[in-house]
Amino acid sequence: MSGRAVALVGGATTRFGVRPTTWAEMAQEAGAALFRAIPELRADECDSLFVGAAEPERFAFQSHVAPLAAEQMGLRPRRILQRTELACASGQSAIRSAYAAIAAGLSDIAVAVGVEKMNLPSMAEANSAMGCVMDRPWDGPHGATAPPFFAMVAQRHMLEYGTTEEQLAAVSEKNHRFANTNPTAQFYAKSFTRDKLLRLPLVAPPLRLGDCSSMTDGAAAVLLVGEEFASRFTDTPVWVRGTGQYSDFHNLANAGSLTDWVGLKHAAREALGRAGITVRDLDLAEIHDCFTISEIVEYEALGLCGPGEGGPFAADGRGDVGGDLVVNPRGGLLGCGHPLGATGIGQAVEVYQQFAHQVPPSRQAPDPEWALVHNLSGSANVHSVMVYGRGRAA
Amino acid sequence: MSGRAVALVGGATTRFGVRPTTWAEMAQEAGAALFRAIPELRADECDSLFVGAAEPERFAFQSHVAPLAAEQMGLRPRRILQRTELACASGQSAIRSAYAAIAAGLSDIAVAVGVEKMNLPSMAEANSAMGCVMDRPWDGPHGATAPPFFAMVAQRHMLEYGTTEEQLAAVSEKNHRFANTNPTAQFYAKSFTRDKLLRLPLVAPPLRLGDCSSMTDGAAAVLLVGEEFASRFTDTPVWVRGTGQYSDFHNLANAGSLTDWVGLKHAAREALGRAGITVRDLDLAEIHDCFTISEIVEYEALGLCGPGEGGPFAADGRGDVGGDLVVNPRGGLLGCGHPLGATGIGQAVEVYQQFAHQVPPSRQAPDPEWALVHNLSGSANVHSVMVYGRGRAA
Repeated sequence: MSGRAVALVGGATTRFGVRPTTWAEMAQEAGAALFRAIPELRADECDSLFVGAAEPERFAFQSHVAPLAAEQMGLRPRRILQRTELACASGQSAIRSAYAAIAAGLSDIAVAVGVEKMNLPSMAEANSAMGCVMDRPWDGPHGATAPPFFAMVAQRHMLEYGTTEEQLAAVSEKNHRFANTNPTAQFYAKSFTRDKLLRLPLVAPPLRLGDCSSMTDGAAAVLLVGEEFASRFTDTPVWVRGTGQYSDFHNLANAGSLTDWVGLKHAAREALGRAGITVRDLDLAEIHDCFTISEIVEYEALGLCGPGEGGPFAADGRGDVGGDLVVNPRGGLLGCGHPLGATGIGQAVEVYQQFAHQVPPSRQAPDPEWALVHNLSGSANVHSVMVYGRGRAA
Repeated sequence: MSGRAVALVGGATTRFGVRPTTWAEMAQEAGAALFRAIPELRADECDSLFVGAAEPERFAFQSHVAPLAAEQMGLRPRRILQRTELACASGQSAIRSAYAAIAAGLSDIAVAVGVEKMNLPSMAEANSAMGCVMDRPWDGPHGATAPPFFAMVAQRHMLEYGTTEEQLAAVSEKNHRFANTNPTAQFYAKSFTRDKLLRLPLVAPPLRLGDCSSMTDGAAAVLLVGEEFASRFTDTPVWVRGTGQYSDFHNLANAGSLTDWVGLKHAAREALGRAGITVRDLDLAEIHDCFTISEIVEYEALGLCGPGEGGPFAADGRGDVGGDLVVNPRGGLLGCGHPLGATGIGQAVEVYQQFAHQVPPSRQAPDPEWALVHNLSGSANVHSVMVYGRGRAA
C-alpha cells in the first residue's frame, strides 16, 4: 500500500533553552550536530530538506525559512525543499512529509530539521505570537491561549474523575527527572521534587509553573532514507511503520469533550493499525506533554488505561522506567522545553537513540521493539502520530 | 519508481483582488467554489488537506491556519492536514505535498487550497511582511525586497542582451489581455496597451507599474486523487507526470548569475525528465511572471529559446495563442494578481480547465497534451516545476 520502506537513521539536537542565538544560527548548529552524529553523511547526497517551523514570521521576523535553513546547513536540495507548519506539531509534520516523499520515490535521502526561536527581547511580543495559534478573532478575545485552555481541560478532568494536583505533579516530576539525564534539555541539572512542584506559582489554576512547558529556543535534525540506503548510515535503522493524523475543529465553539480527545484516538488507531500492532506492544512513547494534564489525557486516549485513569497511571509510575512502557524519556516538553518546530524532531532523535541504546540507563527502555511519537497542536484540535519499529515491514 | 498515478480532477478560484474579506472567509469561499465545481465530491471523502499560505502570521495575524482552513471548508481531514510555506511558491508546494502523499498511498482524495490576504489596512505593514521573504538581517538593510531585486535582473539582462522596455511591455500586454478573459483576475476588464504600459510610473527602474504583479487577496483550491478514483470526478483527468525543484542559495551574496537561472534549469530538467518529454512537447505553460523580466528569463532557462533571446521571444508572440506554446493564459501573476499561497493553485486550476476545454477560445491552447507549471520564490533562489499530461504514464 505505502510505497517503499523508510528508515530513520540518526539525528541530533542542539541545546534547548533561552539561547543568545538567532534562528539562522540555530539551524546552522542543528546541521553541524547532524553531520557530527552521522559522519558517513555527505551534504551533496541530501536531496531534500523539510523544515518544521511554527512562527518564524512572528518570533524571528523572517519568512521563507526553508532556503535559509538549507543555506545555513550547507545543503542545496535538488528534489524537495519545503517548510511545514502545524503550530506545536510542525516538527512531526516535517517528518511526515519526508516520509511521504521517500515512500513515493520522490526523495532518497532527506533531512528534516525543526527550528524555533521563541525568546524575543519582549515577552509581550512572544505571547502575542503564541496567541495567533488559536482562532484569534473568535477565541482570542476570550483569552483562550494555551495555558487557560489546558487549565480548563484540567479543571474538567478533576471534576469528572477526581484527578488531583499531586497526580499532575507526578507527571512533571518524572519528566524533569528524565531531563536531568539529557544535557540538551532546557531544565537539565535542575531538581524538581513533587513537593517543590506543588509550591510553584499558579499560572492558570490548577496549572502551576511546573505543569507548563516553556518558551524555548532550540533546533533538532534527523535523517530519513529509503530502505536501500539505510545500511550506509547505521546498524540500527528505525523503521517508520505507521502514521496517522486527525483534525477535529479549530474554533473552540466547535470542540467536543475537553477530556476525551477523539482526534488522538483516531490518529493512534490509524498509525497503530498501519503498523499492525496495538498500544500494548509499545515499549516507548514520546507524547505531547505541553502541560501535565495533556500527558494524563493522552494516556487515556491512547488506551494505555481507561477513561479517568490517567491520574493514577501517572502516580503509580506506569509510564516510568520499570512501568508498562517508558513515556517521554528524553524529558518531554516539560523538561526539555518546547521550541515548537523542533519538538517533534527532538522526539524522533530520542526514538533513534533509544533503539540504538545511546541514552543513559536511567531512561533507557529495555530493548525497544516499538515506539510511538505523538504531537498535538493548538487546542488539541489536531493530533499527529507516528509509529516506529525495529523491524522492517514483512 | 514513484508510487501510483495521481490525477488533478478539478478546481476553482475565488475572485482575486483587493477584497473586503478575511483570510478565513476566503478559505470558505474557495471551498464553496470547489464543491460547486466538482458536484460529485463529498466533504467526508476528502481525507487530506494541504494548505498553501505564505505569511498569514504577518498579513492576517493568524498562525496554525491549516485547521482553520479545514473548518472553514467543512473538512475534517483524517489522514493529513498540513500547511506548507515556500513564500511565493507556497501553493505549488501544497500540491507537491498532496502528490507525494497520494503517490505513497497515504492519501486517496486530497484537497490543496491556497489562501492569501495581503491587503492590510496599512501598506507599510504589508510591505514589512514582504520584506521578510528575503534574508532580512543581511539583505534587508540594502533594501533588497522583490521589486529592486527583479529590477537588477532586468538591468543586467538589458546590459548583457539589449533587452528593451518594449519587450518587457509585450509580456505585460499579453498577460493583461489574457486576464481580460478571466473574470476571477484582479485586472479583469482593464485595458493595457503597450503604449499605455510604457507610460505607467516607474516602480524600480526599468520596471514600471505594469511590469510588477500586485498585492492581492485571493484563494484557490484543487482536488487531487489516486488513479482509481479519478473517473468518479471527471472525464478529463490531468495526470501529474513529473515534478522538480532546486534551491540554490538564500543570501544574495551567495547568488550566481542574475540572468541565468540555474535552479530553474535543474528543476525543469528533473520534471520534464520524469515525464519523459522535452520542453518542445509543451502546449501550455503557467510560469511565474511576478515581474515581466521573470517571464523573459524563464523562457530562456526553460530552453524555449536561447540565452538572451527571451525579449524577442516575447515581442514576437511566441508565448501567445498561435505561437510556440501558450504561456500564462489565465493572465499570469501580472494580470490575475499574486496572492502568494493561492497563485500556484490558481495556475493548476487553469491547467485543468485548459485540458477540459473550459476556457474561452481566445486563451485556449489547442488540444493540449502537456502542460508545465513553474513557481519561483524569494530572489529566484528556489524554483519549483510540475509537468501535467493528458495521458497516464504507461
